[in-house]
Amino acid sequence: MKGREGILGVHTRKIPLCDDVNVPVLARGTAGFSGADLASLVNEAALYAARCNQKTVRMLDFEFAKDKVLMGSERRSMIISDAEKRITAVHEAGHALLTVLLPHADPIHKVTIIPRGMALGLTQQLPVDEKHNYSREYLDDQIAILLGGRIAEEITSGSVTTGAGNDLERATELGRRMVCEWGMSDAMGPLTFGKKEEQIFLGREIAQHQDYSEDTAIKIDQEVKRIVMQNYERSREILIAEKVNLQKVAEELLVREVLDAEQVRRIAAGQALEQYTRPTVQPAAAGVDEDEARRRKERLPIMGPVPPLQKPLPAD
Amino acid sequence: MKGREGILGVHTRKIPLCDDVNVPVLARGTAGFSGADLASLVNEAALYAARCNQKTVRMLDFEFAKDKVLMGSERRSMIISDAEKRITAVHEAGHALLTVLLPHADPIHKVTIIPRGMALGLTQQLPVDEKHNYSREYLDDQIAILLGGRIAEEITSGSVTTGAGNDLERATELGRRMVCEWGMSDAMGPLTFGKKEEQIFLGREIAQHQDYSEDTAIKIDQEVKRIVMQNYERSREILIAEKVNLQKVAEELLVREVLDAEQVRRIAAGQALEQYTRPTVQPAAAGVDEDEARRRKERLPIMGPVPPLQKPLPAD
Amino acid sequence: MKGREGILGVHTRKIPLCDDVNVPVLARGTAGFSGADLASLVNEAALYAARCNQKTVRMLDFEFAKDKVLMGSERRSMIISDAEKRITAVHEAGHALLTVLLPHADPIHKVTIIPRGMALGLTQQLPVDEKHNYSREYLDDQIAILLGGRIAEEITSGSVTTGAGNDLERATELGRRMVCEWGMSDAMGPLTFGKKEEQIFLGREIAQHQDYSEDTAIKIDQEVKRIVMQNYERSREILIAEKVNLQKVAEELLVREVLDAEQVRRIAAGQALEQYTRPTVQPAAAGVDEDEARRRKERLPIMGPVPPLQKPLPAD
Amino acid sequence: MKGREGILGVHTRKIPLCDDVNVPVLARGTAGFSGADLASLVNEAALYAARCNQKTVRMLDFEFAKDKVLMGSERRSMIISDAEKRITAVHEAGHALLTVLLPHADPIHKVTIIPRGMALGLTQQLPVDEKHNYSREYLDDQIAILLGGRIAEEITSGSVTTGAGNDLERATELGRRMVCEWGMSDAMGPLTFGKKEEQIFLGREIAQHQDYSEDTAIKIDQEVKRIVMQNYERSREILIAEKVNLQKVAEELLVREVLDAEQVRRIAAGQALEQYTRPTVQPAAAGVDEDEARRRKERLPIMGPVPPLQKPLPAD
Amino acid sequence: MKGREGILGVHTRKIPLCDDVNVPVLARGTAGFSGADLASLVNEAALYAARCNQKTVRMLDFEFAKDKVLMGSERRSMIISDAEKRITAVHEAGHALLTVLLPHADPIHKVTIIPRGMALGLTQQLPVDEKHNYSREYLDDQIAILLGGRIAEEITSGSVTTGAGNDLERATELGRRMVCEWGMSDAMGPLTFGKKEEQIFLGREIAQHQDYSEDTAIKIDQEVKRIVMQNYERSREILIAEKVNLQKVAEELLVREVLDAEQVRRIAAGQALEQYTRPTVQPAAAGVDEDEARRRKERLPIMGPVPPLQKPLPAD
Amino acid sequence: MKGREGILGVHTRKIPLCDDVNVPVLARGTAGFSGADLASLVNEAALYAARCNQKTVRMLDFEFAKDKVLMGSERRSMIISDAEKRITAVHEAGHALLTVLLPHADPIHKVTIIPRGMALGLTQQLPVDEKHNYSREYLDDQIAILLGGRIAEEITSGSVTTGAGNDLERATELGRRMVCEWGMSDAMGPLTFGKKEEQIFLGREIAQHQDYSEDTAIKIDQEVKRIVMQNYERSREILIAEKVNLQKVAEELLVREVLDAEQVRRIAAGQALEQYTRPTVQPAAAGVDEDEARRRKERLPIMGPVPPLQKPLPAD
Repeated sequence: MKGREGILGVHTRKIPLCDDVNVPVLARGTAGFSGADLASLVNEAALYAARCNQKTVRMLDFEFAKDKVLMGSERRSMIISDAEKRITAVHEAGHALLTVLLPHADPIHKVTIIPRGMALGLTQQLPVDEKHNYSREYLDDQIAILLGGRIAEEITSGSVTTGAGNDLERATELGRRMVCEWGMSDAMGPLTFGKKEEQIFLGREIAQHQDYSEDTAIKIDQEVKRIVMQNYERSREILIAEKVNLQKVAEELLVREVLDAEQVRRIAAGQALEQYTRPTVQPAAAGVDEDEARRRKERLPIMGPVPPLQKPLPAD
Repeated sequence: MKGREGILGVHTRKIPLCDDVNVPVLARGTAGFSGADLASLVNEAALYAARCNQKTVRMLDFEFAKDKVLMGSERRSMIISDAEKRITAVHEAGHALLTVLLPHADPIHKVTIIPRGMALGLTQQLPVDEKHNYSREYLDDQIAILLGGRIAEEITSGSVTTGAGNDLERATELGRRMVCEWGMSDAMGPLTFGKKEEQIFLGREIAQHQDYSEDTAIKIDQEVKRIVMQNYERSREILIAEKVNLQKVAEELLVREVLDAEQVRRIAAGQALEQYTRPTVQPAAAGVDEDEARRRKERLPIMGPVPPLQKPLPAD
Repeated sequence: MKGREGILGVHTRKIPLCDDVNVPVLARGTAGFSGADLASLVNEAALYAARCNQKTVRMLDFEFAKDKVLMGSERRSMIISDAEKRITAVHEAGHALLTVLLPHADPIHKVTIIPRGMALGLTQQLPVDEKHNYSREYLDDQIAILLGGRIAEEITSGSVTTGAGNDLERATELGRRMVCEWGMSDAMGPLTFGKKEEQIFLGREIAQHQDYSEDTAIKIDQEVKRIVMQNYERSREILIAEKVNLQKVAEELLVREVLDAEQVRRIAAGQALEQYTRPTVQPAAAGVDEDEARRRKERLPIMGPVPPLQKPLPAD
Repeated sequence: MKGREGILGVHTRKIPLCDDVNVPVLARGTAGFSGADLASLVNEAALYAARCNQKTVRMLDFEFAKDKVLMGSERRSMIISDAEKRITAVHEAGHALLTVLLPHADPIHKVTIIPRGMALGLTQQLPVDEKHNYSREYLDDQIAILLGGRIAEEITSGSVTTGAGNDLERATELGRRMVCEWGMSDAMGPLTFGKKEEQIFLGREIAQHQDYSEDTAIKIDQEVKRIVMQNYERSREILIAEKVNLQKVAEELLVREVLDAEQVRRIAAGQALEQYTRPTVQPAAAGVDEDEARRRKERLPIMGPVPPLQKPLPAD
Repeated sequence: MKGREGILGVHTRKIPLCDDVNVPVLARGTAGFSGADLASLVNEAALYAARCNQKTVRMLDFEFAKDKVLMGSERRSMIISDAEKRITAVHEAGHALLTVLLPHADPIHKVTIIPRGMALGLTQQLPVDEKHNYSREYLDDQIAILLGGRIAEEITSGSVTTGAGNDLERATELGRRMVCEWGMSDAMGPLTFGKKEEQIFLGREIAQHQDYSEDTAIKIDQEVKRIVMQNYERSREILIAEKVNLQKVAEELLVREVLDAEQVRRIAAGQALEQYTRPTVQPAAAGVDEDEARRRKERLPIMGPVPPLQKPLPAD
Repeated sequence: MKGREGILGVHTRKIPLCDDVNVPVLARGTAGFSGADLASLVNEAALYAARCNQKTVRMLDFEFAKDKVLMGSERRSMIISDAEKRITAVHEAGHALLTVLLPHADPIHKVTIIPRGMALGLTQQLPVDEKHNYSREYLDDQIAILLGGRIAEEITSGSVTTGAGNDLERATELGRRMVCEWGMSDAMGPLTFGKKEEQIFLGREIAQHQDYSEDTAIKIDQEVKRIVMQNYERSREILIAEKVNLQKVAEELLVREVLDAEQVRRIAAGQALEQYTRPTVQPAAAGVDEDEARRRKERLPIMGPVPPLQKPLPAD
């Protein structure tokens, strides 16, 4: 983090910062960013501020820039088959519906099947307030939401795809941290397991260093699996019960491409949506209206099905 | 990927790019390419565009260049004994026939026993549409097709050769990713296993980092084996039932050297092929006709028997 | 340590040091400081001495500087929801009450819910005298105090949060050292386990090197868990018995933000506190009064709930 | 391989190459060569071409040079005790006789007890045709032949020596690859085990990376042992049955030092050899006659007993 | 060692060496010294020789310098609470008494509770003659003596402290070497276990490389524990039987701060010491008298309770 | 080896070499020598040749130089207590007597208790002829001889010392290579275990890379132990039976310091030695007589008790 703070310090020196900009907080919120990413971040923020005729760059501008760097731009031109679009809609509908139905989840902000960066769709949540710590109930619900995409595919089509890979990885990671870092497994007790090994020159943590016995490793695996599976079952029961609404969200997504929080909540409540009129022109990236400002506060959304980039499928 | 994007950026700066060229997509599609490979890629694409009297280099040209860099040029002059040619024909026939007989496979484009690069033969599939994610059924069929070469050798000659090594490696890899990355094993559940360790300076992922217990490792191995073996048995049953057609495809390959999709499908349907006349002159790499353009879209084909290059056989 | 001593030698060369400054002792007390941290340390100490109109920089000034470098500055402006503030107050109340109730603990100096650096609150203890070694009883009590934050959350709200992660890590570390370095487990006997591997160029110890069998590793894990769990149960029994006072400390913390040793002791003794008048102005960092000087002697306090910085929650 | 190709490219730039020289093929065939080895290779090839009054350097010249670099020159002056000479003769006779008696082996070209490089003797096989892949039967026979040297020592002298170390290593390696890379163990199935880790800067593969569980490791070890032991028993039965001829080959080797394919076959067939007359002068390395050209095509022969160079025997 | 020899060669080039100085022996006796340590060593030796009006630097001077570099200077000004002083006195008394009571131990030279370097006290032994090898009995007694400090704490106060950490580490190390390097465990037999891995550029051995199975590792752990525990029990029985004298040595240490060999032996024999008169002035480091010269021959003494420097206690 | 050859090439360029000097053989025979060692080697050889009035440096001179570099010079001035001298004499007598009594051992050349380099004594064997490979019987006897020093200590004094550490390490290493490299364990079969990992830049092999399962590791450990223990028992039975002669050899070593082959054989045969007259002057390193030339051919002798240099005993 110190490294990122230093790099941000260098890049922000030349631009007029608003008083609300807190470089250490920025550094903390950009874990995993490379030096080049941080340079882009500052640059995008400055450009955005300029475009909005601001004299200084505010924290809000940095949040906007972070989203763009993290997720890439929207890619409306990406060619996706109808079959894949349908799967994506179902997948996102699974995430979206659960954010409405689970009691401790951050509420939904928006769900879309317009591809952005590498993702075919996105479900964005909006925290009620700035959280610094997370309760066990919140984490359980978040795991359930992450698994919701895969489950939605299963219960509507009976099949599954590689698209949920990233969701499963994040759910597993959350489960593992509940057990190993946050003492949230009664079987393991209020101890922590594994030492973080930081790779010093690169300023990022590489991997947990295993400092426990195989016996402990087995118990950790069992507890992580138990946590993920319990949330999987919970999520599955909800989505099966709500299958009609799940399919309705997916259908509306195929028609409208984007649903906002209100629309998802209305479908979940069994209410009809207003008539949809396909816009004649796609709105360009406009000025900073109220909604935009709010959107900028959003954190890293749940990405929809992500093509397995890093290792191309051996043969097709 | 960022590294490759940067390198591609440098090399493409000096050449006129068509609007359809998307450098990030190129970077994503060239995982495992070294800096030198990327330089060749850009060079070959530019040469090819020039040869076709184009003013700009299109995405298509890059696809063509990628094939050449990946697979090497055709090597008609390579000396191969008749026995090996026969084994290669049988091996490729196994791959080819399965692409026709399995319901979720990408359809065949071409199969050949003309050596290319390091491979003694090739089976090329052509995706129906651009896929971003893969279903469990698609992956199962692809494993079955990869194993088809080895199985064809077994059921026709009763023996097996080292030539299937690369196929087996790819099938095992697919099976492992189904279990560890895509949550497609019911026994393991919707969790992921192993952390990807990227080697930062080289921009390529080195190996999965094992972050689970031996107990979990044993279960993963069992599941990977189960998946591969089920597809092996499925593939074997099909090829035994279709042994006559398998041998027919092999025979035709020995005669014609190349079979296109239509020809393979006709043999599979029990129909006779048109009379074959050996061409008097081998056609040189001609201009970009329709078929060529289509061929360029193809992805990495299944390579036929590949000699075990990297470790020469200790003694013969 | 030699490395830190050298770096400190370079930085202190240019400032007038009081006779009581012992560079090797400073070096010893700054394990884990980077070169930049050490430069800040010397700088802050010099600034503080100057602000107090001293001609030389005393050991006291370095202690003050160390606290600031370690913990960061107070962050009164940080926005924290009422819910989180309440959890923090309960959490700190757990730590604070135990320092009063456990017989071998260093007595409390101060407890606060004003955020400082990354921590949402702090509980500071003040050693009766400079300790060079620690008894088994002292270490047991310290583990119990560290676990007190998590336990206080559990018994008042029935839920737990990620905020105790750092406490659990420190308690586990203490338990592990009792077993592996200090021969304080009867089951393991008066032996040590694991070799310290120093990373020479960076002058800091990386990790314990495991030089024992899996059997021994299993026994170590069991002993560490036994030690932590025994103190957890002990701590839990005390806090359940003292639940009324625990909530009283938390309530007073929410009102006053800071409680000193006397105030915590009075609540623990069931006595009422003096009437609280919210100060109209927050006192700036004033001169060095008696209390300040005493405060400077304090060691690294128990940090309150710490947001899980290094790995941002995957999705919210 | 790319690295070797580059180095070869540099060295061959200055010499006139015949059209049949294929640098990538050369690079492939010189796995394990250092930069210096490659320089020697090109140099020896050029010298040899010059000595034969050729204007360009042909592939044949590179093959010759490779043998010399790989195996070193003949060392007729090396002092070897009669006892060791006898053991070497028996050892080589074991290899040689098996090449004649096993059905899928490459036929013998020559067997000698004239030391060459580090080896006290050599058995050279000559492939019937250029193989690109190897059948299971061929590999089994090759393992049997490799073990033949050790077995011959056992059944004639009742003792064994360190000289077979290299043979055993190569047999074990072949067995391991049959199991792990070529899917030739029914127990393990058509999967591969272990990832090849290439050491990038040096262009050579370092070691198989174990990516499987201990359970799988145990099964792999059992299968490799089974394969090697089955061929050991097979080889042993043959050589015990042919013990008279084995000793005859050894005797003739002690007399003539070199036996060609015809001579070994005649002994194996129970026929007498022509009268031997010790040549008065050892023929110098002459011009390129038919036989020489043929010899150059040979691959890496089975080296006779190799003294354990790398770790000198602790004490003698 | 070669490295240290070279460094010593450079530093000693400029100073006049006495004939008895043997640089290789010096190098051997300074295992673990850094380059800077070696420079200090030569410097201190030269200063000491100058202070004694010698014209050349003798081996004796190097021995003196080594002690100083190794242990640091006396630190009479260090503030230690009475409680800690008492624990230190008991701890040192345990070491000291055992040197007198164990038959194969090197006799005691001096015991003190004046802090030196990082240690709160020291027990120094004086070898009867220069040993090159050590008997099993000697090593057993040395382990017993090292454990004596911890045991003395236990049987007098019923509690234990972290101060014995270094003693336990050294006792464990000795036990491990008896088993793994010196074949002194009948259960393990006359074999050695583990390869020493030297880190070449730094000239010091990093760690034993485990080249044995888990089964063997378990047996090694059991044997090391058995050896340490047997000596612990032996040591404990002696000190319980001698508890009166143990407390007497501790009391005298608290009064006199230093006891010489004769004084310890007299207390052990139940005799009274001469009346103690606190000296008015602490004697400065004087010239080289007989006793000093003798003291310089001493090896690395057993350090008294050592504060756990490297990892500061997480919280107090 | 290539590295050493290169270094030797550089150093020998400037000195006149005799025709019998074979640099690759020299390189092979100096495994483990550093660059500095090789420079010393060439230097010593040249000095020795000059002292003998030779015009060229012969292989013999290099052999002599190698001994000196390897073992160091004689150190008659080293101070050794009578007790240690006695242990050394018994230890060497154990080695020496076994070389005479074991049938496959290289015969003894000389045994001495004059310290040389780091060793307190030496037993030198002289091979009957240049061996290139070693029989199982030879290796067994060599292990027995290596263990003879420790056993001699045991059966004469009932105690053991650290002095045998190096012998045990070499015996274990031989046993391990018999099992893992030379296929000499029937239980493990004719396979090899472990890959040699060469550290390329340093030109020396670092360690065996474990490429087998834990099951195999356990069996290897058992076999190595079995081999070492069988030879230990064999050696022990012989030395107990020959205890009178063992003590006689030790007594004579204490009187004469050196015994030659004939003298050891006479004692072993129960014959008296000629009267001993202590020489008035120790003969200086004289010219190259017949015996000297013969001595130079000797290989690395068995070093007598070696003080444990690398890790100094923690405390004495």
